[in-house]
Amino acid sequence: MLSIRKDSGIRNTAILLIYCKDKQGILAAVTEFLNENRGNIIYLDQHVDHEEGIFYMRVEWELDKFAIPREKISDYFETLIARKFSITFFLHFSDKKPRIAVFVSKMSHCLFDILSRYAAGEWDTEIPVIISNHDTLRPVATSFGIDFHLVEKNASNKHEQEELEMEILQKYDIDFVVLARYMQVLSDRFVASYPNRIINIHHSFLPAFAGAKPYHAAHERGVKIIGATSHYVTADLDAGPIIAQDVVRISHIDTVESLIRKGRDLEKIVLSEAVYKHLQRKILVYNNRTVVFN
Amino acid sequence: MLSIRKDSGIRNTAILLIYCKDKQGILAAVTEFLNENRGNIIYLDQHVDHEEGIFYMRVEWELDKFAIPREKISDYFETLIARKFSITFFLHFSDKKPRIAVFVSKMSHCLFDILSRYAAGEWDTEIPVIISNHDTLRPVATSFGIDFHLVEKNASNKHEQEELEMEILQKYDIDFVVLARYMQVLSDRFVASYPNRIINIHHSFLPAFAGAKPYHAAHERGVKIIGATSHYVTADLDAGPIIAQDVVRISHIDTVESLIRKGRDLEKIVLSEAVYKHLQRKILVYNNRTVVFN
Amino acid sequence: MLSIRKDSGIRNTAILLIYCKDKQGILAAVTEFLNENRGNIIYLDQHVDHEEGIFYMRVEWELDKFAIPREKISDYFETLIARKFSITFFLHFSDKKPRIAVFVSKMSHCLFDILSRYAAGEWDTEIPVIISNHDTLRPVATSFGIDFHLVEKNASNKHEQEELEMEILQKYDIDFVVLARYMQVLSDRFVASYPNRIINIHHSFLPAFAGAKPYHAAHERGVKIIGATSHYVTADLDAGPIIAQDVVRISHIDTVESLIRKGRDLEKIVLSEAVYKHLQRKILVYNNRTVVFN
Amino acid sequence: MLSIRKDSGIRNTAILLIYCKDKQGILAAVTEFLNENRGNIIYLDQHVDHEEGIFYMRVEWELDKFAIPREKISDYFETLIARKFSITFFLHFSDKKPRIAVFVSKMSHCLFDILSRYAAGEWDTEIPVIISNHDTLRPVATSFGIDFHLVEKNASNKHEQEELEMEILQKYDIDFVVLARYMQVLSDRFVASYPNRIINIHHSFLPAFAGAKPYHAAHERGVKIIGATSHYVTADLDAGPIIAQDVVRISHIDTVESLIRKGRDLEKIVLSEAVYKHLQRKILVYNNRTVVFN
Repeated sequence: MLSIRKDSGIRNTAILLIYCKDKQGILAAVTEFLNENRGNIIYLDQHVDHEEGIFYMRVEWELDKFAIPREKISDYFETLIARKFSITFFLHFSDKKPRIAVFVSKMSHCLFDILSRYAAGEWDTEIPVIISNHDTLRPVATSFGIDFHLVEKNASNKHEQEELEMEILQKYDIDFVVLARYMQVLSDRFVASYPNRIINIHHSFLPAFAGAKPYHAAHERGVKIIGATSHYVTADLDAGPIIAQDVVRISHIDTVESLIRKGRDLEKIVLSEAVYKHLQRKILVYNNRTVVFN
Repeated sequence: MLSIRKDSGIRNTAILLIYCKDKQGILAAVTEFLNENRGNIIYLDQHVDHEEGIFYMRVEWELDKFAIPREKISDYFETLIARKFSITFFLHFSDKKPRIAVFVSKMSHCLFDILSRYAAGEWDTEIPVIISNHDTLRPVATSFGIDFHLVEKNASNKHEQEELEMEILQKYDIDFVVLARYMQVLSDRFVASYPNRIINIHHSFLPAFAGAKPYHAAHERGVKIIGATSHYVTADLDAGPIIAQDVVRISHIDTVESLIRKGRDLEKIVLSEAVYKHLQRKILVYNNRTVVFN
Repeated sequence: MLSIRKDSGIRNTAILLIYCKDKQGILAAVTEFLNENRGNIIYLDQHVDHEEGIFYMRVEWELDKFAIPREKISDYFETLIARKFSITFFLHFSDKKPRIAVFVSKMSHCLFDILSRYAAGEWDTEIPVIISNHDTLRPVATSFGIDFHLVEKNASNKHEQEELEMEILQKYDIDFVVLARYMQVLSDRFVASYPNRIINIHHSFLPAFAGAKPYHAAHERGVKIIGATSHYVTADLDAGPIIAQDVVRISHIDTVESLIRKGRDLEKIVLSEAVYKHLQRKILVYNNRTVVFN
Repeated sequence: MLSIRKDSGIRNTAILLIYCKDKQGILAAVTEFLNENRGNIIYLDQHVDHEEGIFYMRVEWELDKFAIPREKISDYFETLIARKFSITFFLHFSDKKPRIAVFVSKMSHCLFDILSRYAAGEWDTEIPVIISNHDTLRPVATSFGIDFHLVEKNASNKHEQEELEMEILQKYDIDFVVLARYMQVLSDRFVASYPNRIINIHHSFLPAFAGAKPYHAAHERGVKIIGATSHYVTADLDAGPIIAQDVVRISHIDTVESLIRKGRDLEKIVLSEAVYKHLQRKILVYNNRTVVFN
C-alpha cells in the first residue's frame, strides 16, 4: 500500500455519543460518572434542541487511569446512567480504526482525494478495498496498493451483484461505505444493512437539483451558486441526513462544462469532510437530521 | 426627504445593452460605430453563449464629443448596425434617474437597507413612493420623508386594489418596482405590465425551498447552508430569472428563529445588490436567465 | 424615537460567563449548583483551550423558580463555586438592557444598519445617544429620534473633548460604545475606561492592511479578497481582540471605488454581528483573543 | 505513468494575450485583424484599467481557416497591429502542452492534488519530473510513474544545488515550475530565469501572515478566518503577483493543528486553480498585479 504517513501515536480514549429526551441533570450525571471514575475528559460538547426537546452529547476521555475496564464501560454506563435517563448511546474506542470500502464508477476526483488523505495518514482508518461497476479506476487502486473488485451491474443482475458486494464487505470486515461518485442506486436492503454507515456525495446543494444531471439543471435554471452535499444514504434517494455542504459562485459565463469542473473541487472536499467527521465519531443522526459536533 | 448625500456629479454617458445571434464582426461593428463618431468608450463587456449561440454586450460611452445627438442615437444605431445583425438593444442615458416604487408588508429590514442607501446617495435613483398592504411601516416612510400608500388586499378585492396600485405607479411615473419582502402575489396582468422591471427577494437559495416558509423547510430538511435569491418577477411564481444569490453556513445549533435572523442579512444585501445592478443597467435577460455584467 | 418593534416579551433569565484554569469537575460543579437550586438551564456551552489550559463557559438559566434571589446570586456563586476553582465570572440579567452610545464621523452605512435593527427591535438594547466629530449625520439621528452631540476634535483640543464625551457617556448611563466608522483614535485613558466595552469596525481582514486607507492598500497589493473586522478596542491600534470577520471576492476589474462600495456591506454586517454577540453576552476575552459562543 | 484520462481531442487554436496603454480603436483593430483573416473568435475578454490607463485583452481563435500560417502570426501581428499601438503581446498555441516541474518537500497534499488532476486528464500539460529536498515523497512520484530527483540543500551548498536543479529543468524542457509547499527559498537568479513562470502557494491570506508559520501566527492573533494565496514568485519573498486566494471560517475552538488541517484543503485547491489558469493562458501580469480572465 502507498503510505507516506508518519506514525502519529495512537490515543487511548473512549468516545461516547448520546441522545435522549432532555431532562435536568443529564449533563451533570454523565460528567460525574466520568469524574468519579478518574476519566480525564479531553472533549465535551453538548447540544439541546429545545424545539424537539432532545439532548445530544459527545464526550471523549482518557482510558489510562479510568477505573472501569474498557470491556465493561458499556454495561456500567447502561446500568448506572443510560436507563435512568432513557439514553441512546454509542461507545467507540479511538484505537479501533474503522474499515472503509469505497464504491466508485468512472470519475476519479473523489477517489483520489480519499486515497491521498489515506496515504498521507490524515485519517485514522483502513481502506482495504475499492468496488466499482466499471474497470476504469483499477489503475488508481493498483497504484495505491489497494484491492479492486469489479462488480458490473445491469437491469437484470442487480440483486445478485449486490449479494456479491455484501459478501466482499463481509470478507474485508468493512465498517462503513463511501460512495465516491458511484453511479448506481443501492437497494433498500443494502442500505438497511448499513444504517448511517453509507456516505454519499451529491453534486448539488440539496434539496435543489436532486436526481440526475444537477449541473445541467443548474445551468438551465440560471442559478448564481452551485454546491455539493454529503449525506448518509437512506431508502429515500437524495433525501438522507445531510452532513456537509459547500458552494461556489458562478456566473452567466459558466458553461455546463465549467460547472462540472468547478463542482469537482466542491464534491471531493465536501465528501472527505463528511468522512472525516464520521471517522472522528462526531455525527449523531436523529429525525433524518445530523448533529455534527465541532 | 432624508438626505445626507453629497453631490456626486452627473455623468453624461449613454449605455447600450445588446443581444443577438452570434455572428462574426458584431463587436467590431459596434466599436467602430462609436469610435467613428467620437464616442469615448469607458466601459465595454461582452459575452458569447456558445451553447445557445447568443452574443451579449454592454457598452458605455461619453456623449460630450459624440457626433450623433442623443435623441437620434437610437435611430442611427437601429439603421446602421442593429438591422444588419438583427440586434435587440436597449439604450439608456446615465443622467436619467430611474424612479422606484418599493412594495412592503410588515418586515422592515429590506426597506431600511434600500432607504439607507438612497438617503446616502449610493444609488442614482428616485424613490418617491412606498406601497404596502399593512400600515406597519408607515413611520419608516415618514422618517425618511417618502410618500406611503396603504393598499390593503383580501381575497375579494385583489383585482381592484391592483388597479389602484397601478394608478399610483402611473401617478409617480415609476420605472421599476422592488418587492422588499412584500407578502402578496402579484397578478399576471400586473407582472406583464412591468416585464423585467419588478425585482423580488426570496428567502432561500432557489430553486430549493420555493414557496412559503423556506426557513421552516430548511430547518426541517437539516441543510447546512441557507440562502437568499433576488430575481425578476414572472408569471411563474419564484421561477423568474435569478439576478443574485448569497448563502450563509448554519449548523444543528440553529433554530428556525436564528435562521430567520441570519437570513435577514442575506435578504437585504442580495436584494440591494440586484437593485444596484439594475440601476447600473448591467442586466440582460434572455431565455429566463440573466447576464449580469461586472 | 422611531420604533416599529413588536413587544417581544422579556425573558427572566440570568447569564453567567466564566473562565478559569481547567480542572476536573468545574462543569459538573456549576451545573450541579444550578440544578440543586432549581435553575432550569436553557443554554450551556463550554470550551476548553487545551493549549493554554483554560476553561470557558456560558450558561443561561430561568430565574422564575431559582432558589437564590437575583441580588444574592453573585455572592453565593463566588462563595460556593468560584473560589474553589479560582473562577473569573461575569453575571448578567437578560431583563437589563445595555445602553449603547454610537460614535460616527461622516459615513452613514454602519449607523443606518445599527439604527434599523434598533428601530425594528432586533436587539435588546437602548441607544439614547449618537456622538460625532462632524455634523453630517445629525439628520439621521433626528429622523430616528435619537439625541445627537457634536464633539469636534482637532490636534489641540483632543483631551478636553474626550472629557466632554466621557461626561456625555456618564449622563446617558452608557454601558458600551460602538465606533461605527468613527475616524478618530481614542486615547488610552478613554479606552481604559471601557475595557472590552468599545467595539470598532476596521475595513480590512486584519491583520492585513491595518492603519489608514486599507482599500487603497488592498488594490495596490492586488489581493483577490477583501474583508472587514470587528474587534474590541485596546490601547494598541487595530490590534484588539477580534470578534467577527467576513470577506468578499474581488478581481482585477475592481477599482478602489468598487472596493469601497463592496466593503461597506461587509463593514455594516460584521459590525452589527459583533454588537449582537456582545448584547447576547456571548463573548469572553482572554489573552487578547475572543471566545464567541454560538 | 498513471493515466486514466480520456482522449479529449486537441483544439487547434491560437491565444493572444495583450497589454498596452489604452487608446481608442485597439479592440476594433485586433478583432478586425482576426475577422479579415478568417480567424473565428471563440473567446474574447478585455479589461481597461482606467486608473493606470492600461488595456488588457485575451483572445482565442480557430486556426483551421485562418489565412496566416501559424509560424507567421507573431510577425504579422507585430508588424500590422502591435507597433501601431505599442502593444506587448504573448502568443500561445493550444496544441502545445506546457511542461511542468513540481518542487516539493515533505507535505503531500498539494502534490497529490496536482498529480490526481494530471492523471485524470483535467489539465493540458505534461509533468515529467518532481524535484525535492527530501526523499519523503519519492513513493508518490513512483506510484504515479513520474521521475523524482532528490536535490538536498543546506546552508553551504545552495548555489551548486540550484545549478543542478536548473540543469534538470533544462533536461526535461520545463516551461514552468510549481512550488507545492516547497520549503526552500529560491535565489534571485533562479527566480529571474523563470519570470512569471514559478507559482507558489502561501498558507495565509497574504499580505497577512507573510513569512514562516502563518497558522501559528493566525492562532496567536485570534483571527476568525484563515486563507491561502497562490502567486507568482518574485525576488521579494511572499510579495509576488497574487493569482488566487480563498478562505475558510474558523473559531476559538480551532487549535493550530485544526488550522493546519483545514488549511491543507485551501492550499491544494488554491494552488491548483492558479496552475489551471496559467495553463489556460488566462493570466497577465502588470505592475506586480495579475489580470486573471474568466
